[in-house]
Amino acid sequence: MSMKSTAVPYKIYLSEDEIPQSWYNVRADMKTKPAPLLNPGTGRPMSAEELGVVFCEELVEQELDDTTAYIPIPQEIRDFYKMYRPAPLVRAYCLEQKLGTPAHIYYKFEGNNTSGSHKLNSAIAQAYYAKKQGLRGVTTETGAGQWGTALSMACAYLGLDLKVFMVKVSYEQKPFRREVMRTYGAEVTPSPSMTTAVGRKILEQFPGTTGSLGCAISEAVEVATSQPGYRYVLGSVLNQVLLHQSVIGLEAKTALDKYGVRPDVIIGCAGGGSNLGGLIAPFMGEKLRGEADYRIIAVEPASCPSFTRGKFAYDFCDTGMICPLAKMYTLGSSFIPSPNHAGGLRFHGMSPTLSQLYADGLMEARAVEQTAVFEAAELFARCEGILPAPESSHAIRVAIDEALACRESGEAKDILFGLTGTGYFDLTAYQKFNDGQMSDYIPTDEDLARGFAGLPQVPGQD
Amino acid sequence: MSMKSTAVPYKIYLSEDEIPQSWYNVRADMKTKPAPLLNPGTGRPMSAEELGVVFCEELVEQELDDTTAYIPIPQEIRDFYKMYRPAPLVRAYCLEQKLGTPAHIYYKFEGNNTSGSHKLNSAIAQAYYAKKQGLRGVTTETGAGQWGTALSMACAYLGLDLKVFMVKVSYEQKPFRREVMRTYGAEVTPSPSMTTAVGRKILEQFPGTTGSLGCAISEAVEVATSQPGYRYVLGSVLNQVLLHQSVIGLEAKTALDKYGVRPDVIIGCAGGGSNLGGLIAPFMGEKLRGEADYRIIAVEPASCPSFTRGKFAYDFCDTGMICPLAKMYTLGSSFIPSPNHAGGLRFHGMSPTLSQLYADGLMEARAVEQTAVFEAAELFARCEGILPAPESSHAIRVAIDEALACRESGEAKDILFGLTGTGYFDLTAYQKFNDGQMSDYIPTDEDLARGFAGLPQVPGQD
Repeated sequence: MSMKSTAVPYKIYLSEDEIPQSWYNVRADMKTKPAPLLNPGTGRPMSAEELGVVFCEELVEQELDDTTAYIPIPQEIRDFYKMYRPAPLVRAYCLEQKLGTPAHIYYKFEGNNTSGSHKLNSAIAQAYYAKKQGLRGVTTETGAGQWGTALSMACAYLGLDLKVFMVKVSYEQKPFRREVMRTYGAEVTPSPSMTTAVGRKILEQFPGTTGSLGCAISEAVEVATSQPGYRYVLGSVLNQVLLHQSVIGLEAKTALDKYGVRPDVIIGCAGGGSNLGGLIAPFMGEKLRGEADYRIIAVEPASCPSFTRGKFAYDFCDTGMICPLAKMYTLGSSFIPSPNHAGGLRFHGMSPTLSQLYADGLMEARAVEQTAVFEAAELFARCEGILPAPESSHAIRVAIDEALACRESGEAKDILFGLTGTGYFDLTAYQKFNDGQMSDYIPTDEDLARGFAGLPQVPGQD
Repeated sequence: MSMKSTAVPYKIYLSEDEIPQSWYNVRADMKTKPAPLLNPGTGRPMSAEELGVVFCEELVEQELDDTTAYIPIPQEIRDFYKMYRPAPLVRAYCLEQKLGTPAHIYYKFEGNNTSGSHKLNSAIAQAYYAKKQGLRGVTTETGAGQWGTALSMACAYLGLDLKVFMVKVSYEQKPFRREVMRTYGAEVTPSPSMTTAVGRKILEQFPGTTGSLGCAISEAVEVATSQPGYRYVLGSVLNQVLLHQSVIGLEAKTALDKYGVRPDVIIGCAGGGSNLGGLIAPFMGEKLRGEADYRIIAVEPASCPSFTRGKFAYDFCDTGMICPLAKMYTLGSSFIPSPNHAGGLRFHGMSPTLSQLYADGLMEARAVEQTAVFEAAELFARCEGILPAPESSHAIRVAIDEALACRESGEAKDILFGLTGTGYFDLTAYQKFNDGQMSDYIPTDEDLARGFAGLPQVPGQD
């Protein structure tokens, strides 16, 4: 609801000194903290020392810190942020008009950078700490390619070596993302590959596999832990990533506060949860502290429905089962979405922080089918002039549905959603849609049962 | 040179009410006006009535008006501009540091919209006047695809039909641009095509041709003039287009003025001249009125060197020779750059306005080879976080060269260049560069002589 009547411009840009000085750590305000990562061998919580084999030291500290509410952003990272931040908060006047809704729709647009998404917010932070630790390089995985692109930009800027394992289906469908990464100097390998033990094992078991994020993670972790001077970095799911992404929500809130707007509904797409976790962070903080109430909706693909049909359980983050166990909503680490699923948001699990918030009833979740998502994307592109990423379009779909509900009810709600990125590298999917060839896919209960069957045995787990 | 010492932020964003209220028409301040368009049949200046067969009425007025300095921008167009304007003026701090130059480098970035370039500035204006005239639709050509994408966005917004003839080599090398256009509802045909008389004639003469802008223009004009309710629109070269593009320069000047910066050198890439003409407009105005002096450099590809090696003569704008004759620097309407040339900037002629300014010694021109251009592009991408369009990278190349000259001379010059767009749809070219497969091509004098041989006979022409 709006409390002031000041005319809101199409785009609210903050000044550079309004880029947040600190990240906000929502865990500090959570009564029930996210469950700790477990060592799959011992079943005990991972120590900082154990995590330090895989991750950079300061990132391990951030991963484990669930009490410090504000963590200062180093000046070097803030300088990099200035390249593409503050990101605009846009009032979707044209979309509102097209829908004939009394609702006010706002979106925080994170796609105005070459990685095309919000991923750069955490990429530069993780690369910075790796550099500070004196490492030679980092390894990672990428699905749709946004994270790999973002990390290659950050590593090029800091002079760090980067090895990316790219999910094979994306590597083939998105050669342009691969070339962006190469232009930024990264080494890109399709996953599963023959260059790692875990890749060879997966290829032997599933010769025709198109790959998965879980599998690419296993390969990247293996390389990071077997080569001196390397660590592994991850673009989503982890607490540290949600922490870095809080700049999205902090900026959005600062911009809305300027115009006295308090959103009634906040909507974000959710794959591993990095964008949604970042967008909602300061709002959820107010909710947790009892200072304000917001309706918060996570939107996921019906083809990979971890929130809406998954189990809240300890599970592996990777297919190769070499990573720590995380307690999260999961479809099982062997779950791979149908190849007809066009975008990202294909990770089998969900951020442990968001999972706990969802389990505690602090947010809702909704699953949407991809044809309806692309219909929303097309409508949005034609009104608002931005061709959205398929991932972001999940949030657009639900924002439109909420705005249409307002048209029925006559309510002038303030709707905020995260427009995480652009779809410039997703034109193969758009072509399918334009040609009327796009189809939907919903896994059967049997499909899901197969994934759940692989959940690990952990003391206290159902 | 800087006259104030206020710290310049990385990005200078203007507020929405600082979007220009009027376009600036540089012709009003030119002592020698650009030569008029001629009717190829009669050799006489085209009348408004004759032009009205091809172009929309109000655009014809703008085309012929060389006395009105400021032409108000209709509110509907200003509203559309708010979707993606004001565009940022960026201080290239990271690039300066990397080059170790005392120069200050600024770029006006026009790529933050789905068309990926400045083309949208004129697309919405031309679509608006077509709509206002009650037309059913418009036709156009597109080379690299930026113009076609921009126009498809504008037409979708206004509900106008759009038929695009896309240079065949781009249609094949850039299927993603085609899909963006289709997502916005445009009909896209590779050119030359069998759907027009002129296309069939060209295909008969040159069966294996990969097409050219000049040829696609012929087809689009034929369709526009043979179907009721259609007119033809063009993304560059014409006076009206430079007029609309003046928003680039007007915003850049407003932003620089805020910080007391007066550029010593202004650099823009030049194909048909729309970006360069727009960027320099208000600066050239001051120069023409004797209020200030600026060094202005047009940068063109060595493979299509209309300024540096062309003739200043009347020529056809199109290969099919059905368009009016324009006096401009030209390589001859039959000139087609080598297929190894990767980007746009492949038009055989140059804006008559810019041509006259160049002939009068008011600006310089420089031709650069594409390997050097992509080296500059890669360096820029790694420092500044934006993967630039090959076209824009021509300007980057010369801006870097100027900054390196400042390192030698110790001069702290203020350098402004136009970053017209992003290279997200040019990854095939980047891949070639990454693979070390990119080559340069400079037409021989014999190649050029063949183009010049086709120049039309016009009274008074050498």
